[in-house]
Amino acid sequence: MTDPIKEFPVWRYRQGQITAARDKVVVEEPLEIRLSGEPFQVLMRLPGWEKELALGFLYTEGIVRDLAEVINVHFCGTGTDPLLPPNVVDVSLAAAAQAPRGRPPLEVSYSSCGLCAKEAVSEICRKVPPITSNLTIPPAALFTLMHRLQEAQAVFQATGGTHAVALASPDGRVFIPAEDVGRHNAMDKAIGRAVLTRQDLSGLVALLSGRISFEMALKCVRAGIPILAAVSAPTSMALELAQELNLTTVGFLRNQRLNIYTAQERVAEVGK
Amino acid sequence: MTDPIKEFPVWRYRQGQITAARDKVVVEEPLEIRLSGEPFQVLMRLPGWEKELALGFLYTEGIVRDLAEVINVHFCGTGTDPLLPPNVVDVSLAAAAQAPRGRPPLEVSYSSCGLCAKEAVSEICRKVPPITSNLTIPPAALFTLMHRLQEAQAVFQATGGTHAVALASPDGRVFIPAEDVGRHNAMDKAIGRAVLTRQDLSGLVALLSGRISFEMALKCVRAGIPILAAVSAPTSMALELAQELNLTTVGFLRNQRLNIYTAQERVAEVGK
Repeated sequence: MTDPIKEFPVWRYRQGQITAARDKVVVEEPLEIRLSGEPFQVLMRLPGWEKELALGFLYTEGIVRDLAEVINVHFCGTGTDPLLPPNVVDVSLAAAAQAPRGRPPLEVSYSSCGLCAKEAVSEICRKVPPITSNLTIPPAALFTLMHRLQEAQAVFQATGGTHAVALASPDGRVFIPAEDVGRHNAMDKAIGRAVLTRQDLSGLVALLSGRISFEMALKCVRAGIPILAAVSAPTSMALELAQELNLTTVGFLRNQRLNIYTAQERVAEVGK
Repeated sequence: MTDPIKEFPVWRYRQGQITAARDKVVVEEPLEIRLSGEPFQVLMRLPGWEKELALGFLYTEGIVRDLAEVINVHFCGTGTDPLLPPNVVDVSLAAAAQAPRGRPPLEVSYSSCGLCAKEAVSEICRKVPPITSNLTIPPAALFTLMHRLQEAQAVFQATGGTHAVALASPDGRVFIPAEDVGRHNAMDKAIGRAVLTRQDLSGLVALLSGRISFEMALKCVRAGIPILAAVSAPTSMALELAQELNLTTVGFLRNQRLNIYTAQERVAEVGK
């Protein structure tokens, strides 16, 4: 089984000092679910329990209703099975269950990009140019902007039920906060507003209330945003994409502390 | 604009006492994004900034690369536009951008179910039977199981980067914990394991490290799990589904407190 934890270099900011270290990061990898050999869905997931994930997904999406409809579930994580690549799980369905009932929630993403994180990242890198912005931001400005995002989260304050993203210039003159029940939506709302109001995205920082997954990092590089800073943890695949495309990623931005994972030169004290 | 907050009845458990009250809950509604009139994607979202969400989504998915490719973005939240129903946003693309570049991340869900939360919930209710399980659990057992879930989150403890779900019997004899970078995957892994090991899902409680969205509640009712308890907040659409299908939902399960939102009779002290 693929190790669920991977080490990455990190630059830790604590009380005005930045020190280099290593950090443990959760592993994110794509998984293709096939139904009787036909590609059906690609999920981004933590390696482990792939048969369970595929079966549970089909069960809770209403595709499979009983274990008797399943002939077998194949998964070979090692890549030693010539007929089944790594990161592919194949669910053989009995004839009665061959056709998904109703309209399945079909989601096809990255399946043309290969089936490991490295290949998927390489495929993105062939399509999306690396970030060249010279934008920098001091840690103190990141703390200020994140505090302002938390104050702008009006629906969260009333309900505890939203994620938030803000796009901001380091000096705070541009500040576009968005809330949503989903993290991806909050990012898309903020980016959509920035595009509609013709902001220069290469001069903005994205601030997240949650975690940095591959898809959140991908949204930033596609939009040309050079710095992504989050309250919580990044995933391995997000950092691999960020390394390749020169996106600055900052995690665990809380209590006047932060970790810089990639393109760390953009987080700098004024005058340094 | 639709109000982003909706009130629901709640039963608050504090220090051995349950009292009825009202709680503010974040609103979740479907949004269909159309490309030049053709259905393209359905997202579950917090109402507000629909044009921004559609544009940002198309931008960060690589479908639209420049505002010049967009002729117009139409949204009429009130439903007074005879050509554009509520919860539909239509992005008219210039001819050059008509065909999505590459393979779009197509996700079609609930679009046959109507385009408001109420219709989507009604559509589910025609397909999925209500939960009839007589399972009950005392608040103290919920606290114990949630604590056990947190202790089982090994990857989270090392990285801070996972969500967790456990399926458990009230007495804790059955306890199936799963971690993943995504909440939906963690739920699917736990349910998949329960199905593979032939557990009776009508006798299990689902415990979540995060929030109760519509999709998480839907996974439980499809699997026949009668009680869903989470550390954090529910959404309006999750509660509407839970009310209709008799799923018990418990939120803000932390610090020896909890809120019961629906089918509250399943949370009961022993002997009551």
